[in-house]
Amino acid sequence: MQTVRGRSCLQNLKLREVVSVYFTMLAVVLVILIASFQGVVLKADGFPYKVPLDPQGALELSWNISYPEEVVHFQLSVKELKYGVMLGMSDRGEFRNADFVILWSDGHNSYFGDAWSDQHGRLQLDAQQDYQLLEAHRTPEGLNLIFKRAFSTCDPKDYLIEDGTVHLIYGLLEQPVHSLGAINISSIPKGLQRVQLLKPEISIPELPDDVVTFEVLAPNVTIPNQETTYWCYITELPDNFPKHHIVMYEPVITKGNEAIVHHIEVFQCAPEYDTIPHYNGPCDSKMKPERLNYCRHVLAAWAMGAKAFYYPEEAGLAFGGSGSSKYLRLEVHYHNPLELKGRIDSSGIRLYYTPSLRKYDAGIMELGLVYTPVMAIPPHEKDFILTGYCTDKCTQTALPHGGIHIFASQLHTHLTGRKVATILVRNGAEVEIVNMDNHFSAHFQEIRMLKKVVKVLPGESLITSCTYNTEDRSKATVGGFGILDEMCVNYIHYYPQSDLELCKSAVDLGYLQKYFNFMNRFNNEEICMCPQASVTEQYNSVPWNSFSRDVLQSLYDFAPISMHCNKSTALRFPGEWEKQPLPKITKKLPSPVPHCDTTECSPAKAPIIVNIDKKKN
Amino acid sequence: MQTVRGRSCLQNLKLREVVSVYFTMLAVVLVILIASFQGVVLKADGFPYKVPLDPQGALELSWNISYPEEVVHFQLSVKELKYGVMLGMSDRGEFRNADFVILWSDGHNSYFGDAWSDQHGRLQLDAQQDYQLLEAHRTPEGLNLIFKRAFSTCDPKDYLIEDGTVHLIYGLLEQPVHSLGAINISSIPKGLQRVQLLKPEISIPELPDDVVTFEVLAPNVTIPNQETTYWCYITELPDNFPKHHIVMYEPVITKGNEAIVHHIEVFQCAPEYDTIPHYNGPCDSKMKPERLNYCRHVLAAWAMGAKAFYYPEEAGLAFGGSGSSKYLRLEVHYHNPLELKGRIDSSGIRLYYTPSLRKYDAGIMELGLVYTPVMAIPPHEKDFILTGYCTDKCTQTALPHGGIHIFASQLHTHLTGRKVATILVRNGAEVEIVNMDNHFSAHFQEIRMLKKVVKVLPGESLITSCTYNTEDRSKATVGGFGILDEMCVNYIHYYPQSDLELCKSAVDLGYLQKYFNFMNRFNNEEICMCPQASVTEQYNSVPWNSFSRDVLQSLYDFAPISMHCNKSTALRFPGEWEKQPLPKITKKLPSPVPHCDTTECSPAKAPIIVNIDKKKN
Repeated sequence: MQTVRGRSCLQNLKLREVVSVYFTMLAVVLVILIASFQGVVLKADGFPYKVPLDPQGALELSWNISYPEEVVHFQLSVKELKYGVMLGMSDRGEFRNADFVILWSDGHNSYFGDAWSDQHGRLQLDAQQDYQLLEAHRTPEGLNLIFKRAFSTCDPKDYLIEDGTVHLIYGLLEQPVHSLGAINISSIPKGLQRVQLLKPEISIPELPDDVVTFEVLAPNVTIPNQETTYWCYITELPDNFPKHHIVMYEPVITKGNEAIVHHIEVFQCAPEYDTIPHYNGPCDSKMKPERLNYCRHVLAAWAMGAKAFYYPEEAGLAFGGSGSSKYLRLEVHYHNPLELKGRIDSSGIRLYYTPSLRKYDAGIMELGLVYTPVMAIPPHEKDFILTGYCTDKCTQTALPHGGIHIFASQLHTHLTGRKVATILVRNGAEVEIVNMDNHFSAHFQEIRMLKKVVKVLPGESLITSCTYNTEDRSKATVGGFGILDEMCVNYIHYYPQSDLELCKSAVDLGYLQKYFNFMNRFNNEEICMCPQASVTEQYNSVPWNSFSRDVLQSLYDFAPISMHCNKSTALRFPGEWEKQPLPKITKKLPSPVPHCDTTECSPAKAPIIVNIDKKKN
Repeated sequence: MQTVRGRSCLQNLKLREVVSVYFTMLAVVLVILIASFQGVVLKADGFPYKVPLDPQGALELSWNISYPEEVVHFQLSVKELKYGVMLGMSDRGEFRNADFVILWSDGHNSYFGDAWSDQHGRLQLDAQQDYQLLEAHRTPEGLNLIFKRAFSTCDPKDYLIEDGTVHLIYGLLEQPVHSLGAINISSIPKGLQRVQLLKPEISIPELPDDVVTFEVLAPNVTIPNQETTYWCYITELPDNFPKHHIVMYEPVITKGNEAIVHHIEVFQCAPEYDTIPHYNGPCDSKMKPERLNYCRHVLAAWAMGAKAFYYPEEAGLAFGGSGSSKYLRLEVHYHNPLELKGRIDSSGIRLYYTPSLRKYDAGIMELGLVYTPVMAIPPHEKDFILTGYCTDKCTQTALPHGGIHIFASQLHTHLTGRKVATILVRNGAEVEIVNMDNHFSAHFQEIRMLKKVVKVLPGESLITSCTYNTEDRSKATVGGFGILDEMCVNYIHYYPQSDLELCKSAVDLGYLQKYFNFMNRFNNEEICMCPQASVTEQYNSVPWNSFSRDVLQSLYDFAPISMHCNKSTALRFPGEWEKQPLPKITKKLPSPVPHCDTTECSPAKAPIIVNIDKKKN
């Protein structure tokens, strides 16, 4: 192997001198920079995280994270490289306004550089080169590139790598590239892969000696040759299976299907039903027994790019025992955009459980908005925010004296959701982000371990906000169960388990009626406000404009709420829960300031030439 | 004279090395930096602008501006320097969160540096030193400091020098200073002076040969020994004075009173009155004849720091002739905080006029909000915006075919006004800022020449927004003439004069009533909405909270307006002016991005030692 070009400060100064020359040449003429770089020792402790980028598995990205340095090291493996490859990040996977690292060849030389695409998708070299190439070599399988980038580069053309979902995009260059501006993104092979890049750095608890595994796997399913399939399969635990604690689970992915198995969930069925019919088929089939809809208690969830999920050593998820169903439902999402035929799959999840119960049962609690049409998003909105409250009064009433510890979280909306965040509030002051995803996608809903366990005491509030985009809709989107309705939910995983299963809110219906009445009068009584009209009908009759939108938003931000402070029996805790005041926020969390160390040596200003050795050493 | 220390790039590197040492020493121990600076040739072409900072005239600031370099050169003259002087800038003249340049002495050495005060008024050295000392020398009168600073330093601790009002603050150090943190701002002599720092760079038109002057001066007034006096004096033009054009005017300030004469205006009386009684006394005196209230047509206005006002060479302000009054009212604002006794003053304004009429009469037009209580600001607001419109329909109806040219502007609000801006809109797109002041003060209302003449064509709109702060008020502040009511006005000076004297708006009263009704119902009919209640009474009965505030703001941003598209006769132009739609803005002006040249040599990171020679050479 050869050829990594490390850069020292002094060498950067050299580079900088060259820049002025560089930029005065025509854009198509790439400068040949023959500098004597020193080899660099790769500090990467391997690449623990890995994800296929394309459905064929021709591109694979693995990475590691250094939190102290705020840097990600990437390893991009490419089979059958032609004239280059580009890897990018953008807000939601668009190829416009995206940030790219590109390896390209003009037929003579290969170049490596940081680039960006404008609003028309035209590529340009970045004035500040923030990807640093560490290694480029051929392998028996193809090409391996190792490079690194800081979370935040402070270059406005660069993507800020944040917690939560990152939309990775890639493209393959199949023609010689004489200038980046000449690459026509619309005509090259390309794709999108969502991933949580900044995995939490948590210590893995030791598994007990008596741990047993149970695999819930698809039974040699032939993956349908269609883009999207949700496969449902019912399996069951032994009769009289006593209570255990699940302490870990991990994905089991059939070799070769890594790029197709998109996500997997295991649900337990409702204990109310003694039997659940066996089933093995698509979840949306008309043949699917109705009763499968009562298998919704999440035991495990995995999505592409995720690794094993460990419970904290004090807690485990109750599994088996009286009062729980022996029936489990496996759901596998196959994403098969190439519509490959005849692929056989036995992917699933391997549960690790122990009969030696841990100190605490873990619980799952729903935060956010009640599933009701009283909360709605006007049409044509770019970023409309709905907020659900778990009030101080409910946590005071329902949480154990010592509070609870949240260690994981699964955010959930339907199709128009764009961002989700839950914030902990103490005495009117925002104190901590429980979980946040600024690039949330309904197509990528993992259970994520929190970087730091969050303790919530009785009397504190949890505020969950969801941002929606309804630009392509012409009617109001109301809350509800339908795929075209919306939800705003954070399923928090916590211990010790409490009776509080659901802590959610919705605006008071009486105040919403005052809003409808005002809109009616404002529009000279032209709206049908028949008293028998449903809330959804009333929303549909509002003439949507900046005023009706703004006043609705103001109403949601001010009017009293109906609190659902519910036990697992779906009954409310005793108390008055109607017309409750909104939690008052007197102190916001400071906005995060990206760390930009401007005193350090500036990054390079031009791409570098890459020598790729034909043989791996 | 000695001793200016220019800094070259290399010297900065030296400085930078010293910094690390510097910051490791105790804050009270100032490093002694003995570097061999080279003398620098001051590029200042003199200092055309000058303003006294304090009422005694002990501190005087003069300056010049380089627009190509975006730099201001300052000359600060100090009489009787003790242990130092500080000059600062802040949003509204506060000593907290302010940006300072400080010359201080510990008794042995003198230092010059860039500093800032935190929210508690504590001083700290700036990590980045953005004031550059060019000269420091003794003069027969005291000390002269010459230094420069960029408009924008991109240091978040530094004030951004913008167009419009700048609040200058100063303080005198009368004890040795061992550390900036030890300076107790609350106990040093200090003060505030408002000034327009970024004067427009416009070429001065040549005056005609037959120009004549007419001085409107205070007749040896004894300035009252009280902080604030508005002095009124009636003078008159000769009988049968024919029409002339005023082409220029300039201030005439009695020597010694430069720090007391705050602003001066000359008004012409209404032609409806054949005689106006003579008067010479305070404007608020009960002895002042009632008729003086009809002398409101502005001929000239000057405020401290302003220079001569020139009309563009194509236009002049009509002066004399049939249909105009021969009576003029002079108003001088004396600001005498030291309550000096027995000062005699003959300040005023010298008008330059010509019988050779220029091509165009200049006109003055009022933009903004109608003086009506239907536009109101809720109490306890930090920055509430009201907007007045001059619609495309009005300009289409009333402006001459070739449009008008705006060359000057006087912004006007009452006490709670904080910002004022007028923006020109063409086909729904904001195209140009006519005038803007982000640090507007009701105490400093100059007529300002525009940097660039703005042409307005029939069919374009002019949108004037005012930002108010009512944090110290407990009731709504309504529009109106009273000093505790508010206004939002831009008096634009333009040519050729048109019949359109006033182009202003207010929200439609019917829609405002719908708002009051909604607030009433929302609060369970608890508000008195007696039909005979005045708008002001209804505003006073609204329970102010985030909801009533937000909905009012949304109403103002959406509801139709009543347009006042008025002739000088105070009658409207023919047409329908009620329930007009708001101009739709589809494209905003981009936010200005401060220019920060980070590729240049970084500024110093520590203060420098100053050698002040005792003798001027």
